[in-house]
Amino acid sequence: MLRIGILGLGTVGSGVVKILEKNSENIKNKVGTEVTIEKILVNNLKKERDVEIKKELLTDKVEDIINNSNIDIVVELIGGEQPAYDYIIKAIENGKSIVTANKLVIAKYGKRIFRKADENDVQVCYEGSVAGGLPIIRPLQNSLAANRIEKIYGILNGTTNYILTDMSKEKKDFADSLKNAQALGFAEADPSSDIEGYDAAYKITILSSLAFERFVDVNEVYVEGIKDIDIEDIELAHEMGYVIKLLAIAKNSSEGLDVRVHPAFVPEDHPLAMINGTYNCVYLHGDAVGQVMSTARGAGQMPTGSAVTADIIQVAKDINHNQREVQRMDSFLESNVIKIDEIENSFYLRFEVKDEPGVMAHIAKIFGDNNVSLASVLQKQKENPVVPLVFITHSVREKDLNQSLAKIKKLDDVIEIKSVIRVENNI
Amino acid sequence: MLRIGILGLGTVGSGVVKILEKNSENIKNKVGTEVTIEKILVNNLKKERDVEIKKELLTDKVEDIINNSNIDIVVELIGGEQPAYDYIIKAIENGKSIVTANKLVIAKYGKRIFRKADENDVQVCYEGSVAGGLPIIRPLQNSLAANRIEKIYGILNGTTNYILTDMSKEKKDFADSLKNAQALGFAEADPSSDIEGYDAAYKITILSSLAFERFVDVNEVYVEGIKDIDIEDIELAHEMGYVIKLLAIAKNSSEGLDVRVHPAFVPEDHPLAMINGTYNCVYLHGDAVGQVMSTARGAGQMPTGSAVTADIIQVAKDINHNQREVQRMDSFLESNVIKIDEIENSFYLRFEVKDEPGVMAHIAKIFGDNNVSLASVLQKQKENPVVPLVFITHSVREKDLNQSLAKIKKLDDVIEIKSVIRVENNI
Repeated sequence: MLRIGILGLGTVGSGVVKILEKNSENIKNKVGTEVTIEKILVNNLKKERDVEIKKELLTDKVEDIINNSNIDIVVELIGGEQPAYDYIIKAIENGKSIVTANKLVIAKYGKRIFRKADENDVQVCYEGSVAGGLPIIRPLQNSLAANRIEKIYGILNGTTNYILTDMSKEKKDFADSLKNAQALGFAEADPSSDIEGYDAAYKITILSSLAFERFVDVNEVYVEGIKDIDIEDIELAHEMGYVIKLLAIAKNSSEGLDVRVHPAFVPEDHPLAMINGTYNCVYLHGDAVGQVMSTARGAGQMPTGSAVTADIIQVAKDINHNQREVQRMDSFLESNVIKIDEIENSFYLRFEVKDEPGVMAHIAKIFGDNNVSLASVLQKQKENPVVPLVFITHSVREKDLNQSLAKIKKLDDVIEIKSVIRVENNI
Repeated sequence: MLRIGILGLGTVGSGVVKILEKNSENIKNKVGTEVTIEKILVNNLKKERDVEIKKELLTDKVEDIINNSNIDIVVELIGGEQPAYDYIIKAIENGKSIVTANKLVIAKYGKRIFRKADENDVQVCYEGSVAGGLPIIRPLQNSLAANRIEKIYGILNGTTNYILTDMSKEKKDFADSLKNAQALGFAEADPSSDIEGYDAAYKITILSSLAFERFVDVNEVYVEGIKDIDIEDIELAHEMGYVIKLLAIAKNSSEGLDVRVHPAFVPEDHPLAMINGTYNCVYLHGDAVGQVMSTARGAGQMPTGSAVTADIIQVAKDINHNQREVQRMDSFLESNVIKIDEIENSFYLRFEVKDEPGVMAHIAKIFGDNNVSLASVLQKQKENPVVPLVFITHSVREKDLNQSLAKIKKLDDVIEIKSVIRVENNI
């Protein structure tokens, strides 16, 4: 019999308990012995739970789990940085293997955690940390291991994808769609980590580390969220044949890694443009396999519970057969993410300008002087003296674009730079 | 150093050699030691190869590999039933782990091969046997292991998907599209295994065995190919909002397994309808994860080479660390595939009838008498006395449908039953 301790009985924790219960016979066959829950750490012993659980399994003392010699595997589902990180380290030091869905801790401290695990001859599994139930961590470690991964494009945050889909389909503004997402349980009360892009940044940090075999530093990843996306941009995008998605991007080149999270124009006939609602998607390109795309629900009790429980099964099976999955991350190189200033991209730009002759010439001259070449211009007629002016640039270095925008801002006939959104034509 | 022997230097074998060469440093890091090719079995030692290879590595004697005590892993890429099966068994008996892309051998003899491998304490890996570079075998074994898989829908044969896509887009008939596929190297000179559906049947046998933990008997899998698909059916499907795909289907229910391969109407807004050309796709539903869909190129030198080389890396890593991946197939149950007669489906039916009053009433009466209920009828006007009459039925047991079709065939005013194609509305 293998015994697990679970830290946290929130959404995902309850899902894991349900799956272990429902599929117990099946899991026993796969592991070769029974897997039972020894203890579950909760904040409040008296709180009502949406999952049936024996009272004596609950504890509010973490020592009952991380210092418990009966427990082989600690399943960390508290989330956030502390105390989760400390608990993981202490559990490893006590010889316990770890299963976690904590993207923040793995993205920020993966290197230390994996090294600590190696020293203590235990395993750390984290399939649930990225894209919920979608199998991606192990495929990168195993089935795609023969490839040099060249690029990854991901829709890795269900909350923002739901909001952008809702804005686009219902023609709502951001605040309304966020409220709607919160009402439906697709966004948290404090949605900042999702809508500001940090959640996706942790996830692309994890994927790019595995794919490129470098410990990518999450602090070097450029992050921009969706809260400035205007319904007008979504409609203009649609007119021009694009959909706006929050993309997590990771590319490998001889100059370094290009890893970033930001809203982007995606051509509407690209498969990524069709990933709607709370679905996640990983679209990658390997030198041998070519394009691979996978999609599934990216969050929620059962999808993430599925990934976490799969890790529990794998670790339990290994322990039961006196094995230990070897990750071999010792050859991973250090982070070498290129600064966003140096990245080249095509851009969508929306200005509000005065309806006066010469404004286009003034803007065009500044672009020309700063190596910004234009792919298309769209001028919308309005019945007032403020006119929206929309440009799509050819590929341009961000530094050059920003220099020109700083100058354009100072023009008398330019009222405001409303939107600057990257255009990803070559996914 | 780990040494491998490769049986067969055709398309996939050459791909594996190229990947092992190109990504050797990377592979060494992953395995923890160098992986080198010791010997390659070929039919003709003098044949020109599209891959650079030292002459002394080639042999035309299989014993140089399967009896070679230097070799740890035998990579079987001959394909077909014999001698591939015998070579695999002998190599296992000699203590060698096996990597293979041979769907026929795994589908037909998997049970014996896995048992033999267990007895000899070696591994058998076969990621390359299904859907080329698309990771699906290991995800079913690992990342999705916590789920009860409820159903799988696959587009698992690139040749037939290319032909159906070409027929549909270019309005060509089957024979022309097949010739085109052969000219482009997407169909073999003898394309029978692909176009008759057997290739897909081997693959869905492998997937359903893993997903449902039963040794599915390939002989119990209903198989129907695409060579009777008429351009008229493709166009009528389009008119009614469907696309015709060769689907491999596997469903689990309390009555048994429903496993089959046949052309089917797929709603045109379903993601499977959008998988075109030589791409493969696996669309599955698990009780915890919900829907997961993955797509990638399903065949070819590099995609399949990617999967095979990934297996080589995994087995080599395990051997190098004195481990052995445990498959635990000992608890797999026996095959219990339901006979196709008992399966219920919606059907598209196209008749050619005489343009006479009463024909519709005659047909409708027979359907009514045999529990076949109709969802829609389409009668096309033509300027000759032969009229096409098209029905879509509600869900009906195949036995009942076939009984009614046998009676309809005998009607004087029915000239011919042109097409009978299943309609999959609830994927």
